Parts: sequence; C-alpha cells; structure tokens
Amino acid sequence: MTPAPAVLLFDVNETLSDMSPMADRFTEVGAPAALAKTWFASLLRDGFALTVTGDNPGFADVGRAVLRPMLSAELRPTDVDDAVEHVLAGFGQLSLHPDVEAGVRRLHDAGVRLVTLSNGSTTVAQGLFERAGLLDCFEQLLTVEDAPRWKPAPESYAYGLGVCGVPASEAMLVAVHPWDLHGARAAGLRTAWVTRTRGTYPAHMARPEVAASGIDDLARQLAEG
Amino acid sequence: MTPAPAVLLFDVNETLSDMSPMADRFTEVGAPAALAKTWFASLLRDGFALTVTGDNPGFADVGRAVLRPMLSAELRPTDVDDAVEHVLAGFGQLSLHPDVEAGVRRLHDAGVRLVTLSNGSTTVAQGLFERAGLLDCFEQLLTVEDAPRWKPAPESYAYGLGVCGVPASEAMLVAVHPWDLHGARAAGLRTAWVTRTRGTYPAHMARPEVAASGIDDLARQLAEG
Repeated sequence: MTPAPAVLLFDVNETLSDMSPMADRFTEVGAPAALAKTWFASLLRDGFALTVTGDNPGFADVGRAVLRPMLSAELRPTDVDDAVEHVLAGFGQLSLHPDVEAGVRRLHDAGVRLVTLSNGSTTVAQGLFERAGLLDCFEQLLTVEDAPRWKPAPESYAYGLGVCGVPASEAMLVAVHPWDLHGARAAGLRTAWVTRTRGTYPAHMARPEVAASGIDDLARQLAEG
Repeated sequence: MTPAPAVLLFDVNETLSDMSPMADRFTEVGAPAALAKTWFASLLRDGFALTVTGDNPGFADVGRAVLRPMLSAELRPTDVDDAVEHVLAGFGQLSLHPDVEAGVRRLHDAGVRLVTLSNGSTTVAQGLFERAGLLDCFEQLLTVEDAPRWKPAPESYAYGLGVCGVPASEAMLVAVHPWDLHGARAAGLRTAWVTRTRGTYPAHMARPEVAASGIDDLARQLAEG
C-alpha cells in the first residue's frame, strides 16, 4: 500500500536533472570527463562536512572552491578561472530525465502538491521546468539557502514541511540519493527512491518506502495506492 | 610564531599515506583508474551525510556500500564481490608519503606527543607505521569508531583530546583536508594544513594556523617556534 502523500518534495540535481552533460563541460575546458563525477561527489562531501560543523555555505560557492584545485592540476593557470565558470554554468543548461515530464504531469493532475527542495539554488530548478514547460505544475521551488542547514540535516526537511504547512507524515521525499532519503526518513518523512542510477541500496541507510524506476513509475505506483 | 603544541593529532588517509596506488587497484579489477578518486570522495560524502544525521557508520562499511554500485556498472556481476574486496584491501598496503618519516622522527625527538585520529580503522595506521618502522614514535592510534561521530563533528576531536588529556588549545590537528582542519578549528584546536596536494584553501573554511609542504616542513616550522 503506497497511498499518495499530500506533498511530494523532490530533490533536483540528478533526481530530476540529467547531469551527464556536465562531463562534456570538463572536456570542453580540456579536462578529463571523468572529473565530473569526482567533482560532484567532492562538492557534496565538503558541503556535508560544513553541515556537520553547523555552517550553511552556498552550493555554487562550494562547487567553485572544490573545482578550482581540480582544474588547476589539469590546465594552464591563466585558463582556470574561465574553466571554473564554464563548468558551473552547465548547471543552468541541463535537461530533465525523460521519465520526469509524464510523471510530473500525472502527479499534478492527480492533485498531489509538488514542491522541490534542493541543496542548490532555486534558479536551477526554475530553469529546468521552464525549458520543459513544467513550471506551472510546481507549487513552490525551495532551497536550503533559506533553511538553517543543508540536506540531510533534519532542519532542512523541517523547513520544507513548514513552508508547505504539513506534518512530516504527509510528505514524501523523492530522490536518487540514499543519503537524502536517509535524512528525510530520520526527519519523519515518507521516502521514495528513484532507482534510475542502478545500484544496490546501502545497508547502513534507512530503507525507502517506495522504489521507482523513474518519476513516471512513481506516479503509477502512487495512483494505484 | 608557531610554538609546538603538546600533542599533534594526525589525520591518516592521504595526510600520511600516499593513496595514489588505490588507482592501480581499480585497474587491476578491470575498472577505470579515475574511479579511485570518485570513490573516496563518495565514501566521505556518505560518511559525512550519516554524521549529519547522527549516525556513526564503519568506514570500511561505507566504502564497500559506495563501491559496489560503481563497480557493478563496470564489471560482470559475478566479479563484483571479489573486486570490492580487492580494492578495499588496498588500504592495508599503502605507504607513507616520502616527507613523513623524517618529520615524524624529528617531532618525536623534540618531545611532541604524536597521536593519530582517523575516520578509518586503527589497523590502517598501525600497518603504515609498522611497515615504515615508525610505530614507536606514536603514543596512540585513535579512530572515531570509539568516538560518538566522525570527523569533522566536534565530538570526534573532543574524543581525541579526552584520551590525550589535553585542552583543545594544546593540541594541533594535522591534515591535508580543509574539511578536517575546519572541523578541528571549530572545536578549538590549532590546525596545520599539509599542502602536499597543491591547491588553494577554500574561502568558506576556517583558515589553518600553519601551512606546511609536508610533515618534514611542519617539524621544521614547529622547531623554529
């Protein structure tokens, strides 16, 4: 039994957006494409470390700070600044995964309130939905920039619940990242794992209530109750 | 003025050990060498996420859980288990950076108390020092497995201080990782950044008191007071 929640809180980066073109950005500046994944993992690593110490840094600021030494090891010093900005700008040009549009429309039509909650800027989510013509399906686009701390800290989910005006039990976080689902579950929310990036779910993280291959599959499962 | 502290708390992975041979482990199992850095960043990412939520997972457990889907995307399913263990076993075969031995001996001879504080197992540090004949220079080898949380949580440094019986002001954390130095500084310790992995220090993290090119350079600077 998976009855639809009142509110679906969506993670954005990788959960809704296809981040694979970020690898092209590295190639375009003359760096190995494989650095893209190392960079994004390192961005979250440092962001989470700062969350542990009670800080709430800007997502793009951490991204730049992590990227600069990585690109400095690959490029001429005079090329690094432009290369950093070229990679960062890639966040503003991503597309949604192909399963997202149909799923979002179906969930919206079913009356589920759709909200994003990102560690990144709301402009990224806004651009994604504008380019796809989906912006009107979302009630709010939220960022932890307005919360006390990043996800997966409990205060980040509490911020989203507060804005939406629902208790944790009436909200479900949707994410590809087990760390996000773990944090949301610890904060009392229901959780749905998007398995698009195949893999086994880590044993030391709280298991999701729902596993869906994409947002379209999630919409189907929630419609079936 | 950089007078020597009573106790130097050393980070272990990458700060003392040269982790570059971990890339060979990936090659040996048939995966791209570049995955090594993505894997280690992802290991810390998930470990820190769990630290945010108040958990204290095993370092190797997180390492395995992060590695399995990465290798599953590259290898035949029947090869994944052995490949995961082959990579993990690499931690037990690393060597110290070439600047470490001379620096450790000089610091030990100067009467500074030398202690390690790792997010990983003490067996890794013990093996590193045994192979280098340096084990008798260290008073204690500590791990956050015995602390409430991983570094960079304040409780991890407080655990190290408690075991050593010194206030934070009499201890200096030594690390290559800005996130570790930031956490230690937030917990009141003095900090020394080992710059061996070149790069700029991130602006959003607490700046270190000392920047040293290696442990030998650190020993020299502290000897000069």
